[in-house]
Amino acid sequence: MAFIDELKNVTKDQLMVEPITPLEELHLKSKESMKHRMELTLLKMQAKLCRKFEELEGKPFKVERDVSENCSYITCSIENGDVFDRAGVVFMVLEGQLESEAVKEIAPDSPKMLLNAKYCTMALECLVHPRNPHVPALNGSYRYFEAETTEGMKLAWHGGGHDLKPVYLVEEDIIHFHKTIKDVCDKHDPEYYPKFKKICDQFFYNSIRGEHQGVGGIFFDGLSTPDLEHSYNFLVDCCNSIIPCYVPLVEKHAKDQYTEKEKQWQQIRRGRIVEFTFVNDRGTKFGLSIPGLDIESMLLTLPPNASWKFKHTPEVGTKEYEFLQLMKNPRDWV
Amino acid sequence: MAFIDELKNVTKDQLMVEPITPLEELHLKSKESMKHRMELTLLKMQAKLCRKFEELEGKPFKVERDVSENCSYITCSIENGDVFDRAGVVFMVLEGQLESEAVKEIAPDSPKMLLNAKYCTMALECLVHPRNPHVPALNGSYRYFEAETTEGMKLAWHGGGHDLKPVYLVEEDIIHFHKTIKDVCDKHDPEYYPKFKKICDQFFYNSIRGEHQGVGGIFFDGLSTPDLEHSYNFLVDCCNSIIPCYVPLVEKHAKDQYTEKEKQWQQIRRGRIVEFTFVNDRGTKFGLSIPGLDIESMLLTLPPNASWKFKHTPEVGTKEYEFLQLMKNPRDWV
Repeated sequence: MAFIDELKNVTKDQLMVEPITPLEELHLKSKESMKHRMELTLLKMQAKLCRKFEELEGKPFKVERDVSENCSYITCSIENGDVFDRAGVVFMVLEGQLESEAVKEIAPDSPKMLLNAKYCTMALECLVHPRNPHVPALNGSYRYFEAETTEGMKLAWHGGGHDLKPVYLVEEDIIHFHKTIKDVCDKHDPEYYPKFKKICDQFFYNSIRGEHQGVGGIFFDGLSTPDLEHSYNFLVDCCNSIIPCYVPLVEKHAKDQYTEKEKQWQQIRRGRIVEFTFVNDRGTKFGLSIPGLDIESMLLTLPPNASWKFKHTPEVGTKEYEFLQLMKNPRDWV
Repeated sequence: MAFIDELKNVTKDQLMVEPITPLEELHLKSKESMKHRMELTLLKMQAKLCRKFEELEGKPFKVERDVSENCSYITCSIENGDVFDRAGVVFMVLEGQLESEAVKEIAPDSPKMLLNAKYCTMALECLVHPRNPHVPALNGSYRYFEAETTEGMKLAWHGGGHDLKPVYLVEEDIIHFHKTIKDVCDKHDPEYYPKFKKICDQFFYNSIRGEHQGVGGIFFDGLSTPDLEHSYNFLVDCCNSIIPCYVPLVEKHAKDQYTEKEKQWQQIRRGRIVEFTFVNDRGTKFGLSIPGLDIESMLLTLPPNASWKFKHTPEVGTKEYEFLQLMKNPRDWV
């Protein structure tokens, strides 16, 4: 409960900008209403992440706040920086009624129950595309979903995770990332890390290439066991671990020397991220099915630039070749 | 019939490489079998286009021939040239049985009839992404489809078109392009150009941005009226007009001066082409639904590189702003 008590004391200057819901209302309702609590929690996380990335970049995030009836956003972005080609930390809230296209993406196994349900979902998306190809890219997404079906049934769950997308294999970096998140998982349930690591590997799979997207991390969805208090605490701990998982890798490699060829390889790998985003990513497909969604905030997850080269196949024995083999066969890291 | 008689005399050195079906068999059957005739026709077109682009670029296309039971390709590509960042002329033949995902893309209005039908489809895809942002990009696609339903009904049709994707508005260039293709259409049917121009505008619509993709051209599908001989002749004339429609624009602008900012604008517009390819393009979705398809040949239509910039909005009064307005409201050009 320590974290929930803290929420009562969150001041406006601890956030990037005024919340979507008035701060006073969030203070008042955070204990009882998970929706309110999640908004305040994710906005506090957003500021924490942004402040850390600003420290690394040495320049401030651009902040945009868009509030509308069905979709609201607080979008923080840095583009064309010295350390980050693009970094985005986006908070979004979507509310409405679930239409058939959206239901397919959010509940592919039980689409009928949720059809026409009133829902509210919110997410904090964090993506980092560093300039230096030796710094891995980062993807993180933590979300909350609640709905009331047409038959009056109430559903709610937490979901999310974060994962690493390097373009070169540096074993100790990947081990550090996985070990840090595993330690967090183990405090909650020893079964979580192996289970959510596997889901993450399966999720970030580029089906048209037959290869995985990065070296994974964790991903969970539909979590509400044993109860929402537990899944909330788990989400908070995971989200808090983004910084210790990732920032040491930025600090270690941001000033590494790199060649034009290595930058080009990063661009080609970014092309795979673009493909995955449009062809495979359920989150993007869900978003695209919601009318009136702010496409710019949603597509901030895309890399700022990407390349495609016809039948680009790295030579056997090169670092690029070694990395591609890894993308075909995910490993256990801890 | 002049064109069909010519086919009998096509020699191997008039093609880029050995056809998929033995040349002798194509000679023998071209008159009676539309499938054979189309293969030879499209391969002859492929060579004609490649020779012309090679002349412009001053270097030869890379040619790859991949033959397998269900999908065969002859892929000609130039990358990183002085004139073309990427140019591809791809011939492909796909054969098999139509599964539900594929049927949805190829016959969205009559999916049931074609389910499980045996089919053969072939296409010549031509895409050009020039280096100079003042040279428009080109997209062309001419195809033939035939199928036999499970109830023994035989279906066949021609389809295709070509369209221009500039990133700046140069009225006389666009008028030249449209006038050239309109003249070809008018020889066949005065209703074709207005009808197929409109279909093209509707087809190249990026739904997530609410804007069109380029300045159009023509696009037709499911054409077999009054009979396949007529639709074949129409397709041949259209396909032959790619060179007079497009090459004068390359010759006119390939040596234009351009700024870094103009190149960046081209990259952003290429990002929209990537989005369209994955989110809207029925051809790509059809291809992705066919197991075993060569993804590299299929995605050769993508630009070689692309950019995304958060909420990039050109200032009112700039050439980029003027162009964006055009993308929201297609015009009549002739």
